Amino acid sequence: MIVTIVGIGLIGGSLAISLKENGFADKIIGVDKSQENLDKAIRRRLIDEDSDLNTAIEQSDLIILAVPVDNLLTLLPNVLDKVNYQIVMDVGSTKMSLMEVVENHPKRQNLIATHPMAGTEYSGPEAAIPNLFDGKCAVLCDVKKSSKKAIGIAEKLYKSLNMNIVCLGAKAHDIHCAYVSHISHISSFALALTVLEKEKDEKQIFDLAGGGFESTVRLAKSSPEMWIPIFDQNRENILDVLDEHINTLSNLRSLLIKKDLEKFYQLIQKANSIKKILK
Amino acid sequence: MIVTIVGIGLIGGSLAISLKENGFADKIIGVDKSQENLDKAIRRRLIDEDSDLNTAIEQSDLIILAVPVDNLLTLLPNVLDKVNYQIVMDVGSTKMSLMEVVENHPKRQNLIATHPMAGTEYSGPEAAIPNLFDGKCAVLCDVKKSSKKAIGIAEKLYKSLNMNIVCLGAKAHDIHCAYVSHISHISSFALALTVLEKEKDEKQIFDLAGGGFESTVRLAKSSPEMWIPIFDQNRENILDVLDEHINTLSNLRSLLIKKDLEKFYQLIQKANSIKKILK
Repeated sequence: MIVTIVGIGLIGGSLAISLKENGFADKIIGVDKSQENLDKAIRRRLIDEDSDLNTAIEQSDLIILAVPVDNLLTLLPNVLDKVNYQIVMDVGSTKMSLMEVVENHPKRQNLIATHPMAGTEYSGPEAAIPNLFDGKCAVLCDVKKSSKKAIGIAEKLYKSLNMNIVCLGAKAHDIHCAYVSHISHISSFALALTVLEKEKDEKQIFDLAGGGFESTVRLAKSSPEMWIPIFDQNRENILDVLDEHINTLSNLRSLLIKKDLEKFYQLIQKANSIKKILK
Repeated sequence: MIVTIVGIGLIGGSLAISLKENGFADKIIGVDKSQENLDKAIRRRLIDEDSDLNTAIEQSDLIILAVPVDNLLTLLPNVLDKVNYQIVMDVGSTKMSLMEVVENHPKRQNLIATHPMAGTEYSGPEAAIPNLFDGKCAVLCDVKKSSKKAIGIAEKLYKSLNMNIVCLGAKAHDIHCAYVSHISHISSFALALTVLEKEKDEKQIFDLAGGGFESTVRLAKSSPEMWIPIFDQNRENILDVLDEHINTLSNLRSLLIKKDLEKFYQLIQKANSIKKILK
């Protein structure tokens, strides 16, 4: 199968590595608005060749769109306009806005909307790594609107990456991702800002980061190019869980002020129950 | 050197493994209020023998206290009462309260107050691991109040673990730890509580945790037995940074509500600068 990947960053580049390595793709064509990224991708042998979008689509069986979700809103209808038999798969982190944009597109069934729940805090082709997806979860969204062929290709692709496949409606996807992924990023960005504000001595941050800071702040290294469009498109759901998070922190603050450590202890025990879910 | 470790949990047990392995200690005696923990420690060969506190002190050159910081407030003066030539070293996460308790103790100079900035979210002797401390930072507190011999032993010990040694006053230590370590734990406990409150479907948490949640919530598995006494003893400093953290989150919330994504973008870029400090 010939696969085009549009957007050779962390996700697109990592897909390129794994899909070629495991034999799912016979050839990988890279498309990117940045020629510098394409040159890097060629040098790193992430892709077999680079191309412009139209030429790539003509040659491909599958076109994977791995660009930030704001760009997806214009790119996806544009690509659907151009395909005939080809299957199009996006890997964006939000789905509601995107599904609305292509709802009545005549080629809607050529599209399978997906979200592989994997990543790191790094971006660009230099961040692409093997095995990024191994054992993680891939969400397929609104599968009833996709052709059987499109669903079959997406399933085969994610199974070839050893991913667990879950089907969700676009609305449910966005809600669950706000709860489990997007709030973690907001929390981590806020924690980095807080510590940078309070701790003026960078050496202390460096020295003492082994005390837990390093892991909670990891996501704060993530790029605004990727995350601002996600926060924008999933704004309502994120505000909902962000309100809850601020309330929870304010409650812990009140307990500290009142020295009600017994209640605080019970809340930590409750938080500990996350162990049962995440091992 | 014969070393007694009081409290054979994550930190005490990991010290026991590494100090025996690297030859710093010829024999490690374990003391713990839980006989079950001692039995586990013997079975895991973390310690050479277990003993009661008095017998252990008599036989030892160095007594390391690795118990929760509330227990330290009574244990430390009690141990200092009993030593002659022996050096006592605590490894507690807060220092101001502890330093006050022993300020005028006649054996104060036998004590070297330390804090190795390393840990995991697990506890108990079963959580003890090799190389926990490797490359991390060890803080020595208020060293002017310790004898040269005590300082020398602590330095030799932490160097044998390949740790970077930093000297801080107790007050500065507690402030910096509130900023860099303790707030990370509060944030992580709150995030776990938030997500458990909003996301009633545990399977979704499990499936989607690859989207960043797993790393930000790791510390929420930490035990209340260890952390409530830390929050209690470092309450003022933690409230100070917690207020800042809630303000930061409220500010991000306002920007989302106002759709001021340009300012949000700039704040993420600012948060990204943590990369320069933590690589």
